[in-house]
Amino acid sequence: MSDLSPTPRTQLGRLRDKGVADRAALLTLLSDALVAHVGVLAGDTPLVLPTAFGVDPDGPDEDGTLYLHGSVAARWLNTAVQSPVCVTVTEIEGIVAARSGFEHSVNYRSAVIFGTPRRVTSDSERAHALALIMDHLIPGRAGTLRPDTRKELAATQILAISLHEASLKARDGGPDDEAADIASGTWGGHIPIRRVYDPPVPDEHVVTDPPPDVVQLCQ
Amino acid sequence: MSDLSPTPRTQLGRLRDKGVADRAALLTLLSDALVAHVGVLAGDTPLVLPTAFGVDPDGPDEDGTLYLHGSVAARWLNTAVQSPVCVTVTEIEGIVAARSGFEHSVNYRSAVIFGTPRRVTSDSERAHALALIMDHLIPGRAGTLRPDTRKELAATQILAISLHEASLKARDGGPDDEAADIASGTWGGHIPIRRVYDPPVPDEHVVTDPPPDVVQLCQ
Repeated sequence: MSDLSPTPRTQLGRLRDKGVADRAALLTLLSDALVAHVGVLAGDTPLVLPTAFGVDPDGPDEDGTLYLHGSVAARWLNTAVQSPVCVTVTEIEGIVAARSGFEHSVNYRSAVIFGTPRRVTSDSERAHALALIMDHLIPGRAGTLRPDTRKELAATQILAISLHEASLKARDGGPDDEAADIASGTWGGHIPIRRVYDPPVPDEHVVTDPPPDVVQLCQ
Repeated sequence: MSDLSPTPRTQLGRLRDKGVADRAALLTLLSDALVAHVGVLAGDTPLVLPTAFGVDPDGPDEDGTLYLHGSVAARWLNTAVQSPVCVTVTEIEGIVAARSGFEHSVNYRSAVIFGTPRRVTSDSERAHALALIMDHLIPGRAGTLRPDTRKELAATQILAISLHEASLKARDGGPDDEAADIASGTWGGHIPIRRVYDPPVPDEHVVTDPPPDVVQLCQ
């Protein structure tokens, strides 16, 4: 694994001090976040859709692999194959209540990954990718379920994107206020934000069984 | 206000039953979500960035206005003016623990808005947009702060996008499992997800004052 190796596209145009050239931090963010927002070209127009994803830091692509999946009929996935895409993964972690409107901000971590997806075709890599995507939502769940059927696999396409061309930005802590605003006595600080999982809700077919340990995500 | 009026671009290619032709639901989502993911064209490549936003349902654009802002030096905002963009706003609300990998899913609401932004130039609309963007993060905060300075305003650009060409998708509840999987006795259900605000954290310049009521977002 190399450090993040920005190309011209991933060099940050502004706020360069927020660039974190740290591949470990990228992988931590990709592990923490639940969905990605994927930008594809729909004709001459960008189209951005949220989607689940999985990551294999040791995957076959340069600097690791990010996997997307969906129906073989999903137009945006068919559009993305062998075309330039942008995968953006964001965690919102707080609101910055500054002493001026200008300095109000959001605390966050966000990764931008550029790549040209390849369609995954080998049975073994497809099974691996699907398990990664599921375990990203519910760690350990994939190993507790029946194997996918041939029909299910035939209905599913999987795309792989290299983690090579990635950049990371982050902000945390309180506001960066001007001295005059601090002197004004206005309150300044930040409001942390967390994601919370509530207890699992059984569907109407569950009779008495408690949920298995792996779906006990509640905090 | 009209109902959502999908153009060919916003007609859902798949899962049409998840389309919710309801402008009120769109506005509720835009109120609930903290950030948008904006897709712009950077040359031939889509670029997706997270950003704060504000909404005026009665704004001057057709079916209302969504406002973005940033530095006058922000390349992605300069790129977006008079170019096609996609603004996607997503709330992740749960994980669907199905009885097969194939039926695993995410509960969510997501809006996709296509538009060609105009730069906001009038002083009154700029002030209105900035207040909306700030109050979207911390309701009521804008009215408690000093006015923006001429220098701050000169450093800020604001873009406006019509809410006309918008679509909404949503999923909630438990899994859609096959009868054979339900009969297997595997547990199935969903895990709700919520965003939680922790108590405000004062910065090092706050001496004894409690935070004002408007920053008490904690739940």
